[in-house]
Amino acid sequence: MSDTLTHDEKIQKVREIIKDIDFGMLTTVAADGSLHSRPMSTNKNVDFDGDLWFFTKASTLKVDEALAHHQVNVSFTQPKDQRYVSVAGTAELVRDKEKIKELWEPELKAWFPDGVDEPDLALLKINVESAEFWEGPSSFVAFAAGM
Amino acid sequence: MSDTLTHDEKIQKVREIIKDIDFGMLTTVAADGSLHSRPMSTNKNVDFDGDLWFFTKASTLKVDEALAHHQVNVSFTQPKDQRYVSVAGTAELVRDKEKIKELWEPELKAWFPDGVDEPDLALLKINVESAEFWEGPSSFVAFAAGM
Ligand SMILES: Cc1cc2nc3c(=O)[nH]c(=O)nc-3n(C[C@H](O)[C@H](O)[C@H](O)COP(=O)(O)O)c2cc1C
Repeated sequence: MSDTLTHDEKIQKVREIIKDIDFGMLTTVAADGSLHSRPMSTNKNVDFDGDLWFFTKASTLKVDEALAHHQVNVSFTQPKDQRYVSVAGTAELVRDKEKIKELWEPELKAWFPDGVDEPDLALLKINVESAEFWEGPSSFVAFAAGM
Repeated sequence: MSDTLTHDEKIQKVREIIKDIDFGMLTTVAADGSLHSRPMSTNKNVDFDGDLWFFTKASTLKVDEALAHHQVNVSFTQPKDQRYVSVAGTAELVRDKEKIKELWEPELKAWFPDGVDEPDLALLKINVESAEFWEGPSSFVAFAAGM
């Protein structure tokens, strides 16, 4: 498969797969070197021109970890179709209220009951550096950078 | 939920959740500090007394990464039941033929056509140090070590 898709088609493919999956697992490196992951909502609203955006509170462990060791991973799994995506990138905290309002979705109230007025609300922006995906038991395509 | 389950019940719960999920995403840290994940089969045969075992070829990037930075993460997701598990642990390569034979499952032929006779076949053992799980949109339970 890696031979038949162009770079743009690969990016398109990853974007499509992620769009179908509501949640990714965000893995960060803790101060002691251990790796922790947690589910994060993509809001089905994946603006995947190289960036993933997650809503979070700014004062949380995952943000501390992502700002100390910037490199993170987000994995997406769709077992019923045997689709798996690994996205490697660097994390950045964005507190811009305009961007927060632009990306806000009502479903996020489950985690942030005060909505965009929640003072600690922020965005964790993942600058994607490489992505890999698997479809079926063995095929996979990897591509790097310039996404 | 964290207040109503004992430590043993939490471990039992994680074991149960993982048993239902065929694949985990194993995240390792590369030499440049970037984080990469890939799907790994649990063979529905989870011997979760603190250890996870994955079949792999010994000469692979994930093994190199796991032996250089021993701390890894394995995440399991079951979106239809809103179940998510994050397991943090340290990785170790096991080449013991007896153990390989003990854990071998016929389905693994999809990845290792030569079966237990594949000379490069090995086990990646994950010594679990902590685990966290989520059930439903907002509840989550974390617990550490001694698993
Ligand atoms: C299905 C699901 C989706 C979640 N989505 C988010 C999210 O988009 N943003 C967020 O901050 N937490 C989300 N959470 C909660 C996180 O997984 C995590 O428990 C919380 O953010 C605290 O993480 P931390 O202590 O590692 O910072 C979600 C939890 C579940 C179960």
